[in-house]
Amino acid sequence: MNFITLSLVAGAAAIIYGIIQTIRILNLPKGTPDMIAISDAIAEGAQAYLARQYKVIGAIAIVIFAILWFWMGALPAFSFVIGAALSATAGFVGMNVAVRSNVRVATAAKKGLKEALITAFAGGSVTGLMVAGLALIAVAATYLLTQKFGGSLNPLITLGFGASLISVFARLGGGIFTKGADVGTDMVGKIEAGIPEDDPRNPGVIADNVGDNVGDDAGMAADLFETYVVTAIAAMILGEIVLKGNPAAISFPLAIGAGAIIASIIGTFFVHPGNSKAIMPALYKGLIAASVISIIIFYFLTGAIMGGNLKVFATTLIGIFVTFGMVVITEFYTSKGYGTVKHIAEASATGHGTNIIAGLAASMKSTFAPIILISGATLASYYLYGLYGVALAAMSMLSLTGIVVAIDAFGPITDNAGGIAEMTNQPEKVRDVTDALDAVGNTTKAVTKGYAIASAGLAALVLFASFTQELAKFGHNVSFSLSDPKVLIGLFIGASLPYLFAAIAMEAVGAAAGAIVTEIRRQFKEIKGIMSGRAKPEYGRAVDIVTKAALKEMIVPAILPVIAPIIVGFTLGAAGVGGLLIGVITTGLFVGISMTTGGAAWDNAKKYIEAGHLGGKGSDAHKAAVTGDTVGDPYKDTAGPALNPMIKIVNIVALLIAPFLL
Amino acid sequence: MNFITLSLVAGAAAIIYGIIQTIRILNLPKGTPDMIAISDAIAEGAQAYLARQYKVIGAIAIVIFAILWFWMGALPAFSFVIGAALSATAGFVGMNVAVRSNVRVATAAKKGLKEALITAFAGGSVTGLMVAGLALIAVAATYLLTQKFGGSLNPLITLGFGASLISVFARLGGGIFTKGADVGTDMVGKIEAGIPEDDPRNPGVIADNVGDNVGDDAGMAADLFETYVVTAIAAMILGEIVLKGNPAAISFPLAIGAGAIIASIIGTFFVHPGNSKAIMPALYKGLIAASVISIIIFYFLTGAIMGGNLKVFATTLIGIFVTFGMVVITEFYTSKGYGTVKHIAEASATGHGTNIIAGLAASMKSTFAPIILISGATLASYYLYGLYGVALAAMSMLSLTGIVVAIDAFGPITDNAGGIAEMTNQPEKVRDVTDALDAVGNTTKAVTKGYAIASAGLAALVLFASFTQELAKFGHNVSFSLSDPKVLIGLFIGASLPYLFAAIAMEAVGAAAGAIVTEIRRQFKEIKGIMSGRAKPEYGRAVDIVTKAALKEMIVPAILPVIAPIIVGFTLGAAGVGGLLIGVITTGLFVGISMTTGGAAWDNAKKYIEAGHLGGKGSDAHKAAVTGDTVGDPYKDTAGPALNPMIKIVNIVALLIAPFLL
Repeated sequence: MNFITLSLVAGAAAIIYGIIQTIRILNLPKGTPDMIAISDAIAEGAQAYLARQYKVIGAIAIVIFAILWFWMGALPAFSFVIGAALSATAGFVGMNVAVRSNVRVATAAKKGLKEALITAFAGGSVTGLMVAGLALIAVAATYLLTQKFGGSLNPLITLGFGASLISVFARLGGGIFTKGADVGTDMVGKIEAGIPEDDPRNPGVIADNVGDNVGDDAGMAADLFETYVVTAIAAMILGEIVLKGNPAAISFPLAIGAGAIIASIIGTFFVHPGNSKAIMPALYKGLIAASVISIIIFYFLTGAIMGGNLKVFATTLIGIFVTFGMVVITEFYTSKGYGTVKHIAEASATGHGTNIIAGLAASMKSTFAPIILISGATLASYYLYGLYGVALAAMSMLSLTGIVVAIDAFGPITDNAGGIAEMTNQPEKVRDVTDALDAVGNTTKAVTKGYAIASAGLAALVLFASFTQELAKFGHNVSFSLSDPKVLIGLFIGASLPYLFAAIAMEAVGAAAGAIVTEIRRQFKEIKGIMSGRAKPEYGRAVDIVTKAALKEMIVPAILPVIAPIIVGFTLGAAGVGGLLIGVITTGLFVGISMTTGGAAWDNAKKYIEAGHLGGKGSDAHKAAVTGDTVGDPYKDTAGPALNPMIKIVNIVALLIAPFLL
Repeated sequence: MNFITLSLVAGAAAIIYGIIQTIRILNLPKGTPDMIAISDAIAEGAQAYLARQYKVIGAIAIVIFAILWFWMGALPAFSFVIGAALSATAGFVGMNVAVRSNVRVATAAKKGLKEALITAFAGGSVTGLMVAGLALIAVAATYLLTQKFGGSLNPLITLGFGASLISVFARLGGGIFTKGADVGTDMVGKIEAGIPEDDPRNPGVIADNVGDNVGDDAGMAADLFETYVVTAIAAMILGEIVLKGNPAAISFPLAIGAGAIIASIIGTFFVHPGNSKAIMPALYKGLIAASVISIIIFYFLTGAIMGGNLKVFATTLIGIFVTFGMVVITEFYTSKGYGTVKHIAEASATGHGTNIIAGLAASMKSTFAPIILISGATLASYYLYGLYGVALAAMSMLSLTGIVVAIDAFGPITDNAGGIAEMTNQPEKVRDVTDALDAVGNTTKAVTKGYAIASAGLAALVLFASFTQELAKFGHNVSFSLSDPKVLIGLFIGASLPYLFAAIAMEAVGAAAGAIVTEIRRQFKEIKGIMSGRAKPEYGRAVDIVTKAALKEMIVPAILPVIAPIIVGFTLGAAGVGGLLIGVITTGLFVGISMTTGGAAWDNAKKYIEAGHLGGKGSDAHKAAVTGDTVGDPYKDTAGPALNPMIKIVNIVALLIAPFLL
């Protein structure tokens, strides 16, 4: 059996694992009718949102499909559709399982922490393994197709483009939806009406819960599907050029992916709290098991495919090392146990302004260690095995996607479970369990965002290397000298894109929040008996309004990274595009890391105060911390994560237009 | 008379102008004894601060002086001291005139707007023309010395290094002082004790006024002195290499400087409100007059020195164009008349969080137009006359320093005048005048910050070009290919420095504010009768405490850009340093522009509400806007402006160590 077939088998195994887990979850008790009603409302809203989001993207995709067919032929056009469709599928399936898991987690919480934890993680693992499995199959199958039809690797590039396109829309649309609903609902509910979070009397409460799913689940899934696909593709393209047609160059990245999927499946069985109450260690056990098994498999794969070259093996270790490095760094900056979060909390005691200053300083500071880590990894893997070595390190990092996304997708499920428990007035014992899970879910969401941005950065660097090699194939000078003003100006323009993109995304959240605020105020005024609980709010209307706002707001920023390389390419040429790519990667990494880490730090500073420090809930310090959390929301859940696909789509488009830049 | 002598004469003219203006100001009536007492307290605090700041920097400078002497010889070591001393002198003289002008402006305000405006601008023009005059003399004289002793241009580089060192300390120390005092004083005074701004019962009120002078005046003066010096030097070094010893290469940048100084002196006479009440147009009249006269002079200088080459003349026009472009762009984003400020004000109506989100989005968005402007200017001037063309555009922009700094230094004088009027309970008519001047001062401060950062960016690019040419002289490959991982990693590390630097600076403001808060609380508690006005607060103690905090906090961030290129140089070599320089310029520009513009927008959003919109002073919207202003303070007055010298000092150090990188 060759290694391409092996990767198809491993991908299929991941999907089968997902199906089995889904069946198991669906067979768990759903809970009381009121819980089911809420869960159904969330599921309905989430599906309605995704359906409309995909319709909008579909319209854009059809235009691009036509252009690609006309320009590159049928196969690249169809690969584009496959990339887009599978990315959408990964998000769709994951989210559908999540919205069915949430109510079952709330019900399992009645039995205890262990049951609830295992159910929530099972739900998350479906998303995780679907993402990794579908991505690996997409790449391997498309590669086989290219071999059947002419051998050009162009269809791989369009596959990545399709995935990227869905991903940037999903991250933006989902991110704008989730934070627009969150901020808007809290603004009227908590501040104006004085009712608690997740109170069923608030017309926006279902929209808020829908947001967790479309943003943190479907959005994250599409994002990592895309990062996985483009990293594998870039590694294969680079490998083919660097190893000059040696089939190992194609096999090895796919084999790494296959091995780590098997390791991730095994790793999921290690997620178990045992007799302890420690949730985070239970999740990390799974990650560590998957990593150790992956390393062992990588060692044997290096022997089988790369002649046992230890330098090659070392590059795969670097990828795993970066994963753990990002986990440790992000935990340090965002966990309540360390100085940064405490410092922000203490700054809240002197007011809103000082909370924000402390948070902004922390967010900027938190970029340094990740950048040094990514730089060191790039340099080390380059000196071990050249550009292909960097690609392998990136692929090794991404190969853990299955288990990492499983841990991440745990977050929105527990968040929803907590909401359902709250809305249906479950006993305190149950809410204690869901609260504990939700708190950990917040940390895993932060940590995996660090993983996502670091891997996006590495992936983008590998794409950039592919772009240079692609140009070199046509005999183009690819030194991209910083002394060339076109390169420099391209770099400046590229650097401006993440700033512009993030600014538009933040303003979009404001617009979406404004829309739902108006609607909630209207319902409070027009529907008599809402506040006394006699009349039910029109949850669906609120969902509908945020949906429209999010879809409207996502278009402009999503198109920005697609057209920028085309405009720069046809004005400043290849040199300008080379600079553009590095510019967008550079500030993309800084803005992305500072936003995701800073946002999580603000969030946990608020939670630290809510845990009883500095006067606790309701104190002035708490009010200032809520302000910080409000600012952190679009930072960490909209603009920050949307930068991941954004920096890659610029690179993918550059790769597509490379032949025309000469 | 040759053009180097001409530039010495023009520099002397600027200094003589400054002396005459100073005498005129000192002859104006000082006002009532209580006004004089306050003005004296401010002057005393500011002088005490500067004396101690220079003592700290002096200690560091002596070490560097010794290293330079040992390493490069006596002349470069002495030029370093001259650069440092003249930069300090520019700040010292300017500030001393400012602290004497403030009370005279407050007194002149009794006569009317026209008298107060003319007095305030006269005070500012001393700083402006001292900066430009001293800078031009420093460069021309040091060049003459190099010609006398061996001809190496190294002493010019160390001259720039000395100026940079003072500048980064002055910006940081002054910035931390001014905002630490401002934020801390407001926190206890306005929020805890409920007394208005500039209330004489507040023990921190003198420290706050001292801060305006040491930050906005002395800091700004040192900054622009340095930018002027390094731009002229880099242009001369580049010119010598590119024009291969043609003396015109040295003469022309100096001649541009000389011509624009004469034009700036003439321009100051155009600053006059005439019969109208419009303050801003009166100031702009001076800038426009100086620019038009400069352009005419540049045309004739091009004829006399550069053979009437119209391409060369065009590069000087580009410099003037960038100046006006930055004025227009910054006004657009920070003025109350346009959408951005109104949008932030409206977002304040829904809370602290939404104010901050809107402000952050605006700050990020505001980077785009300046970057396109700088990019376009660089590209155009490069295609007109190569690297030397870029240098000439930068020099032309900087040549307007005299008039621009004059308009800027107007700001802290009017700010202080307002404070003195408030503290001495002047009649409303007087305060109306000082308030109007103060409001315009805020805008001019914002606008000239845009000028400072854009010119710093251009200057840094010219320094980078000098660095590459310096390496090329030794036969080094200076392509700095982005495909070289060392260049790329250097670029990432460079990009991280402005983030780290700005984060430390923001935290330093927090620390300094914390120190003065404790002191003010102590005085309120221990000194009986402060609140009833029977006992006088110990203003000096508060000044002393902020001084200590600012000086302590400035050391680490100021040293960061000095050692970074040395560390990167000796680990990643010349390639790494090349990347480092571009990295630091790139994110330095983005972080710098976003902070200075964003901060000013927040400030004016607050003022917009205070002008009666959205509920006016005391409304919830106003409270949220005050939060935004508090965040904007360290953004626009500490971290943002300190990035100007920071991005240049990295480039200067690289130029110094260039011979060792081979």
